[in-house]
Amino acid sequence: MRKILVIGSGKSASYLIKYLLDKSRSENLHVTIGDINTENAKKLVGNHKNATLINLDVFDETQRRKAIENTDIVVSMLPARFHIEVAKDCVTYKKHMVTASYVSPEMQALDAAAKANGLVLMNEIGVDPGIDHMSAMQVLDHIRAKGGKIILFESFTGGLVAPESDTNLWNYKFTWNPRNVVVAGQGGAAKFLQEGTYKYIPYNRLFRRTEFLEIDGFGRFEAYANRDSLKYQSVYGLENIKTLYRGTMRRVGFSRAWNIFVVLGMTDDSYTIDDSENMSYRDFVNAFLPYSPSDSVELKLRHALKIDQDDIVWDKLVELDIFNAEKRVELNKATPAQILQKILMDSWTLETNDKDMIVMYHKFGYELNGKKHQIDANMVVLGEDQTYTAMSKTVGLPVAMATLAILNKKITTPGVQIPITKEVYKPILKELKGFGIQFNEIKVPYLGYNPLNN
Amino acid sequence: MRKILVIGSGKSASYLIKYLLDKSRSENLHVTIGDINTENAKKLVGNHKNATLINLDVFDETQRRKAIENTDIVVSMLPARFHIEVAKDCVTYKKHMVTASYVSPEMQALDAAAKANGLVLMNEIGVDPGIDHMSAMQVLDHIRAKGGKIILFESFTGGLVAPESDTNLWNYKFTWNPRNVVVAGQGGAAKFLQEGTYKYIPYNRLFRRTEFLEIDGFGRFEAYANRDSLKYQSVYGLENIKTLYRGTMRRVGFSRAWNIFVVLGMTDDSYTIDDSENMSYRDFVNAFLPYSPSDSVELKLRHALKIDQDDIVWDKLVELDIFNAEKRVELNKATPAQILQKILMDSWTLETNDKDMIVMYHKFGYELNGKKHQIDANMVVLGEDQTYTAMSKTVGLPVAMATLAILNKKITTPGVQIPITKEVYKPILKELKGFGIQFNEIKVPYLGYNPLNN
Repeated sequence: MRKILVIGSGKSASYLIKYLLDKSRSENLHVTIGDINTENAKKLVGNHKNATLINLDVFDETQRRKAIENTDIVVSMLPARFHIEVAKDCVTYKKHMVTASYVSPEMQALDAAAKANGLVLMNEIGVDPGIDHMSAMQVLDHIRAKGGKIILFESFTGGLVAPESDTNLWNYKFTWNPRNVVVAGQGGAAKFLQEGTYKYIPYNRLFRRTEFLEIDGFGRFEAYANRDSLKYQSVYGLENIKTLYRGTMRRVGFSRAWNIFVVLGMTDDSYTIDDSENMSYRDFVNAFLPYSPSDSVELKLRHALKIDQDDIVWDKLVELDIFNAEKRVELNKATPAQILQKILMDSWTLETNDKDMIVMYHKFGYELNGKKHQIDANMVVLGEDQTYTAMSKTVGLPVAMATLAILNKKITTPGVQIPITKEVYKPILKELKGFGIQFNEIKVPYLGYNPLNN
Repeated sequence: MRKILVIGSGKSASYLIKYLLDKSRSENLHVTIGDINTENAKKLVGNHKNATLINLDVFDETQRRKAIENTDIVVSMLPARFHIEVAKDCVTYKKHMVTASYVSPEMQALDAAAKANGLVLMNEIGVDPGIDHMSAMQVLDHIRAKGGKIILFESFTGGLVAPESDTNLWNYKFTWNPRNVVVAGQGGAAKFLQEGTYKYIPYNRLFRRTEFLEIDGFGRFEAYANRDSLKYQSVYGLENIKTLYRGTMRRVGFSRAWNIFVVLGMTDDSYTIDDSENMSYRDFVNAFLPYSPSDSVELKLRHALKIDQDDIVWDKLVELDIFNAEKRVELNKATPAQILQKILMDSWTLETNDKDMIVMYHKFGYELNGKKHQIDANMVVLGEDQTYTAMSKTVGLPVAMATLAILNKKITTPGVQIPITKEVYKPILKELKGFGIQFNEIKVPYLGYNPLNN
């Protein structure tokens, strides 16, 4: 039996574990799942004979090392900041490792040691990052193989609710970490390339500079820019590209309404509000508006942001019940972002039967034989329920497939890797199709980045 | 002869040195002025027999200590971050010290040692901080002595151009450090108290939440909130106050136009622009606007910020020549803030004959015998020329007066001090009147913080 150690059995582990157990007989696998709390893992595993659950505290060095020493490969599904200790042990005990997280500088520092020991430390092989890398590189390599010169690459991902669960005015519910949604876009200007020029958007304008995307059968989406669209420019081999833009997808109208929170200062996570515990939702809103002895919070807000009486953004605010003078924040010394998150969680938490959806959209522009071409590729994945979510499917399956491929010596290039080589993306993208995770590619007239054409 | 060592002889030292030399005969003073460059000091001192100039590099420990050991009191006019080494030496050699800068935590840490040695380390005794402390505390103490209860305190200061030199559409020129003007208000939400409620303004709204102030004979001003209006709440004894607000004064209309830079992201100092060196002013503006193959930078900017064709803010932008496609930024790897500063310095640098102006405005609200009252107090100081500026006068004279008062044992309370006690503010405010630095106090009906009344 080949031994796989999965550390962490949270929300994104369901498909991962199912895949590995489904393959366990034919592939001769034994899966050990370690977590500080094995409740969720018990539900996922049932009494499968090729699975073992162990209590594993990743901060307990002895426990952690023992578990790693006794396996053939390690999958870390822990929060990203906890991978590094696991990775160091993997190097020590000469085990391969797979994560869905961004390569941290500490992880990158293990590259030489991993190579020296012939180990694959595969990272960024979930959905975003993960499927975005693989699907983009497949098309980019294909275009380049034909002799095409890439001039435009735009890439967008969104974690949303499935259409059947899309029941509020924001067309949005929390399908993943709410905090990341509340503080999204903070920490510096968004930077990207448009037609050969660097462009910068400050946070206060980020949600007002969206672009629209259409997916057949699913309608219209919008996207706002990620902070650093140029992060993978050289990794993808796009040094001379004219337009390079990465963004986050939402349903149309979300960003314009969200910008109200940004502009008022409600997403700020850098200071705490005095007496936040006893504040009502209405008091919270009022803290960002001028004092008046008579004017209502509503009118002050409408006036400050020039919101017309018949503007739908207003109904979105009302739907969140943010003008309620009775509901208390009940968070001690909370930042505006923490308070806003709490208010949003009242409205945007998934109901028992709600399903999620992952959408991805790439645009590839290229020149070939003196002519300009464009390929658009999109992917939509729907969740089945709140255990087998689209998020868990798109994160967990590529991780699981990579794990098995490394065990089977189909992925062998040693070092700290991300899935941008044919060795990795070709078999995995092919296998993902069997699970309904596939891209719809369409040739469209080359538009470039021209708002008049969009 | 009593010996005074003045370290630093920059822009704000002219009145300070003049005052001390004018008093040198009657008060039996010898003034040593130390600077790494004594050019400016030479001009200020001429061949006054009670003055000595020395080359002093404050980072040269031996030189610095020798100079400090040989004096009776030290005045540091260095940039704020350089005071601490001087202060430590003052404690070592048991010398008093005076600065116009904010008390740093490192300075505060010398309090016990200063007290143990009977030394006065007087700080924040320039204009802002300085005259604001003294003038506010005099009125606050007076109200409290009458049995009044303070319910409102608002305080505003501005460094502007004198009316006769007020020749551009912004009614503004750089009379002090341009960089501080460009990055003003950054680093977190502005926080203050209005009628018993904490209020917060994010940076992107700071310049749109101004209030107006009128000074007889000088017309209307506006003020935007400082970052932390509550900094001196307990120091001033205002724990139970309802409204507490500190702000920066500009001429009306400045802030609304400045907000364009803020919203576009041009004041950001946290990242550098690629190829800033070869960029034109127009390219700089365009970096913050969407790409278009045909639309002009002007129309894109008007559209992005919804600027009507007949709005005066537009003329303010044009006056700065920011749409010029020929003028180069010529700064390598510059931040947006550095580029904006350069553009503004083209237009806002003082001409040879320009004069500056310091304005200050306080509002005091209080309850006495069941009735509400308000006192407004304002001060205007005009510069004489570009050496004897209003800034240098209002910073240097209080520093000089405090220095002499400490030498004369009229200010004796030891420790790290700021000028909030009667011992300090009473004689200094009185003496400042002789130099035309005085407050005009008027009793007005109590308005509270009510925009309907203002």
